[in-house]
Amino acid sequence: MLLCDIGNSFAKFYDGKELKRIPITQIEQYRRQKVCFINVNPKVEKLLEEFENWINLEQYITLDTSYRGLGVDRKALCWGVEEGVIVDAGSAITVDVMEKGRHKGGFIIPGIRFLQRDFAEISSRLAINTLQQVDLTHLPQNTLTAISYGIIKPIILAIKQFDMRIYITGGDGELLHHYIPEALYDPLLLFKHLEKLVQRKGLC
Amino acid sequence: MLLCDIGNSFAKFYDGKELKRIPITQIEQYRRQKVCFINVNPKVEKLLEEFENWINLEQYITLDTSYRGLGVDRKALCWGVEEGVIVDAGSAITVDVMEKGRHKGGFIIPGIRFLQRDFAEISSRLAINTLQQVDLTHLPQNTLTAISYGIIKPIILAIKQFDMRIYITGGDGELLHHYIPEALYDPLLLFKHLEKLVQRKGLC
Repeated sequence: MLLCDIGNSFAKFYDGKELKRIPITQIEQYRRQKVCFINVNPKVEKLLEEFENWINLEQYITLDTSYRGLGVDRKALCWGVEEGVIVDAGSAITVDVMEKGRHKGGFIIPGIRFLQRDFAEISSRLAINTLQQVDLTHLPQNTLTAISYGIIKPIILAIKQFDMRIYITGGDGELLHHYIPEALYDPLLLFKHLEKLVQRKGLC
Repeated sequence: MLLCDIGNSFAKFYDGKELKRIPITQIEQYRRQKVCFINVNPKVEKLLEEFENWINLEQYITLDTSYRGLGVDRKALCWGVEEGVIVDAGSAITVDVMEKGRHKGGFIIPGIRFLQRDFAEISSRLAINTLQQVDLTHLPQNTLTAISYGIIKPIILAIKQFDMRIYITGGDGELLHHYIPEALYDPLLLFKHLEKLVQRKGLC
């Protein structure tokens, strides 16, 4: 079974073993294959309709929520989680809360790379190339640490404000996991949920 | 007595009653006046040395701290505060902690305008013109609120993590004060500290 998660610039394919990330412009090469996908990119919607063997999973993902406009990727991440905070740390960091199988709401924080770039633009004195690993239990004693702390600590506090199990995925997931070691970190979380969905619905 | 706070783009003058903000390029017009100033802008250092009646207050601001590279504006804001969290919400948000008259450290968060702009660049779906007033005690139920919450809540949590009196100043100070009504908000906090310093040292 080939699963696919289509974002704004890249499509990720997962065959149950390996993850492949390719530019959107190259998905044509998978046109003849059987693919179960989700898509948040309006630009490729029409093209995907032409791919006869592709199954859009969106219609099968039902989530009990009052949230309007929840992206299908966030829906899929929350799907099947009974209780917990689900964090997807990409170019934006989405945080969603599930309680007794119901989606209680969520919020969005700018991704770490954007925050880093902000500092560089505010002042050249605040430009940093790499985030320092900081001890979040102690107040910073210099600019470099003050910036890294100022990027990481507010995000961590926002995620940990709920006294619940935390699930982390996404490109910066490993970094966040370092600061929340008790969280469950799985870069394949989305695909594992899609896999379960596909099996449950008997789609592949 | 005329006080002046020189930043990267603007200089603020305060005469004890009114605050005037002018572009750095226009400070020449105050050349002959008696001015007590602080400056964080390296580009105008030489020029200021020519201004014979100008007194640089930096030498008089002593702060007990281990922090290396603390800007004179942050020093001046902390100066004279015995206990508390001092927040300056400008293009960057600086947060400094004073305990028993000693500076314990601090950190820096990108300013609200930068966070807002980040969203616009991450995705056009996340572009917002104005920050919504959000109820931070409830989880957002749509994208617009999710973004406003995602900008404000992490900042508020990072400021409130210390169980101490909070002092807020700076361009976005009023906005933050709305969410931390128990804080002391004073747009003139820096100048009030400079005033006290000048009086105590008998400089004007």
